[in-house]
Parts: sequence; structure tokens; C-alpha cells
Amino acid sequence: MTYCLAIELYAGIVFAGDTRSNAGVDYVSAYRKLHTFETNRDRSLILLSAGSLATTQEVCHRVRRDLESADGQPNLNSFRYMFEAATYFGEISREVQQRHAPAMKEAGMTNEATFILGGQIEGERQRVFMIYPQGNFIEDSEDTPYFQIGENKYGKPILDRLVRPDMTLADAAKLALISLEAAMRSNVTVGPPLDVAIYLRDSLEPMSVRRIEDSDPYIQDLRVHYQQYIAEAFNKLPPFPLE
Amino acid sequence: MTYCLAIELYAGIVFAGDTRSNAGVDYVSAYRKLHTFETNRDRSLILLSAGSLATTQEVCHRVRRDLESADGQPNLNSFRYMFEAATYFGEISREVQQRHAPAMKEAGMTNEATFILGGQIEGERQRVFMIYPQGNFIEDSEDTPYFQIGENKYGKPILDRLVRPDMTLADAAKLALISLEAAMRSNVTVGPPLDVAIYLRDSLEPMSVRRIEDSDPYIQDLRVHYQQYIAEAFNKLPPFPLE
Repeated sequence: MTYCLAIELYAGIVFAGDTRSNAGVDYVSAYRKLHTFETNRDRSLILLSAGSLATTQEVCHRVRRDLESADGQPNLNSFRYMFEAATYFGEISREVQQRHAPAMKEAGMTNEATFILGGQIEGERQRVFMIYPQGNFIEDSEDTPYFQIGENKYGKPILDRLVRPDMTLADAAKLALISLEAAMRSNVTVGPPLDVAIYLRDSLEPMSVRRIEDSDPYIQDLRVHYQQYIAEAFNKLPPFPLE
Repeated sequence: MTYCLAIELYAGIVFAGDTRSNAGVDYVSAYRKLHTFETNRDRSLILLSAGSLATTQEVCHRVRRDLESADGQPNLNSFRYMFEAATYFGEISREVQQRHAPAMKEAGMTNEATFILGGQIEGERQRVFMIYPQGNFIEDSEDTPYFQIGENKYGKPILDRLVRPDMTLADAAKLALISLEAAMRSNVTVGPPLDVAIYLRDSLEPMSVRRIEDSDPYIQDLRVHYQQYIAEAFNKLPPFPLE
């Protein structure tokens, strides 16, 4: 498993994810889940992935091959709308899954993958989509300005408490890391290092993925102090009235 | 779904649960998930249930019938050790599930149920067991002094942060309610009112289930102030350093 999330703000979009990949519990390794693509200057896109690592990687290989080929087929540079890019990722994902489906079924395994696609194409506003394993997708909204994929339940309560579309990018990135921390603490299939990417609205600037090692002073400070503040908050609340 | 938990402390045991029961999302109702039994004065037991309501109710009906019958068969008053009571609940649960299994399988449904059994029998120390749908069971430990059943992921991070076996009963009940609040906030299949039962170590006193309505001043105060303190904690933490 893994855990990735995207938070859409008036100011832009924050993307974050862990890097843990595991086949069962006895084969654990680190893989990047935030995928960038070398597209034209009129667009900036990022893909977050959860689920089968094989499916995810094959999808990315095919998308990058399409970008390099000059055969006139649709690729990430040819779409005018973000939803067309979501459709394209969904179709490739479904194709990849279906091609391996008989062998996976025989082995009693699944190769499903779920994606978050976010960014902006010139002429359109910034957008964030979640792409289901079946290839269809939904877009976020101002009421629910975030998407989560993978092990999403542990880190959901803190998002539901604090997320607001008018947060700053720096605050939303802090919130995303706290949400990831909650999942890492309670589930060994979510683990460090963490990756963060930030998109500044209407900038169309290529996104770079920032790696945050477990020894990073910011994450260490966040971890220690958040724990301390939560304990203090708990202690300030009145005890349950025993009868 | 539902969400119940038990926290074992040096001082005793706290049990808590929601009351939501749903068949799909379009048939939602309230059922008690904390079940007490009229046993002899040398023991105090409580059962928490998650999963199929039909299985849970049939298990409780059979356990209460065994208690009333004088045929010399094993019942909740005949066991000398808590693990024997856990075995007994597990066997009845498995039997009930198996009897309905063909019809459930035909309907493509499951009637699995998971239980937490806690309390004390005179001559033994207090104990808490989690009983799996398969009928086998595990006991808690000082390292992990709590069990959760049902929708457990949302309320796990706050437990992992704060639970300690040397907490007071009043503090552990407060923590259990905060954990339930996290689940209720993020998942509609967990809902009010809430139930709490408290066992005082070595008392062997019968447990009474205390109902906490959503309008209860304590839970309302907890909800408002916890939200406020979390927001304050978040604001005290430094924002993510944008580059």
C-alpha cells in the first residue's frame, strides 16, 4: 500500500505522498509515487499513484513513450482540457490492467491502480482529478478540496478538521505532512521518505518533487511538536465524568 | 459498519462504541453494540460487537438462553477463566455464521462478526480479548493496551499517540470518545448516540452502559474544544518551508 493526497487551494495545489511499496509484508522497498512528465511550457501536470506498482510503472512508461513519439497519436501535449488527460490516463491504466488480468486472476491477485492527476493547461483553470481503477474519474470541489488514494483512512480526520481552500500553500503542505504522519504511525505499509510537490496557480511552471528524508529537520520538528501539542490539547479537555 | 473499542488500564477497563447499524447506505438505524449479561456476582463481563447485526443478535440470544437453562451445559457462569468464555463466544459465533453460510453465499453477502470480550472472573485478573469471525481470539497486552473492531482506522492515530496503561479511567474514556469522534466525522457508517461502560479493576461489579446522546453537554464541549485546540496546535507549528 501507499498513501498520497492532493489539496487544491485558491493559491495552487499541494501534492504529497509516501514512498513505501510492499509485496506482502516481507518485501518492502521505496518507490516514488509522484510522477512528473516533460511536457510543453503551456502545461504543468503531475500524477500520483497507489495500488499495483507494475501497473503504475507501465502506465508511466507508455505515457512517456507517447510523449516522445511523433506519430500524431494523442499524448500529454495534445490535450486542450485536463479532463482529456484524465481520460487518457484512465484508458491506458485500464488497458494495462486488462492485458495482465488473466494471469493475475489465475494467481488470485489484483493489479488495480488508482491515480490523482493535477495541474493546469493554458486556457483552463487548475484542476485535480481522481482516476479509478476502472478508468473513470471525478474532479474535486470547493466543498471537498482534497483527494486521497491508498491507505487514506488514518489521515482523513485531520484533513476533515482543518482543510480549507483559502489556506496558504505552506500551511496546506504542513497539513499534508501531518496527515501522512498519522498514516505512517498507524500502518507499516505507509513509510518514509516523503515527497512533496507544489503548484502555484496559473504559473504553468514545471513541478519539481521535493524529497523529505526521515531525518529532515522540518519533519522531525513537526513530529515532535505536533505530538506534544496534541497531548497538551488532550490534557486541557475535561476528563469524562464518572458517576 | 460500526466502531467499538476497549482500553485496558491498570485502573480497570473502558469500553465504548457507537450505535449505528446500516444495511447499505439507505437503511440506517441505531442498535446497541455493548452487551451485558446477568451473570453471578463472582464475575463481570461485557461484549462489544461489530459486523453482521443478525449474527451478533443470535449469538447474544443463545448466550442468554444458556444462562437461563439449568441443563448443566456450559454457560457464562460456568467458566473459571476468561479465555474459556472467549472460546465459548467464538464457538457460538462460528456456529451461527456457518448455519446461515449457504444462504448468505448465495446472496453474495457475508454474516461475519467480530467481538471484544472484557471483564473479570474472580480468581483471575481482568482481561480483554478480541474474537475473530473464525472463532479464534487474541488477548491485549501492556504494549498494545487496546482493541478496536469495525471502522477502526480513523480513530487509531489518536490512540497510538496518547494511550497508556497508566491513564485514569476518566482520561481513557475521554480518549475513547475522541477516537469515536474522529471516526464519526469521517465516516457516515459510524454515528451517535455513543455508549460507554467502565470496569473498575477487581471490583467484580456489574457494568452498566451509559448512553451519551449527541446533545450531551460533555460530548458537545469535547467536540468544540478539541477542534479548537487542534486548530491552535496546527497554527503553532511552522509552515512548510517553500523554496
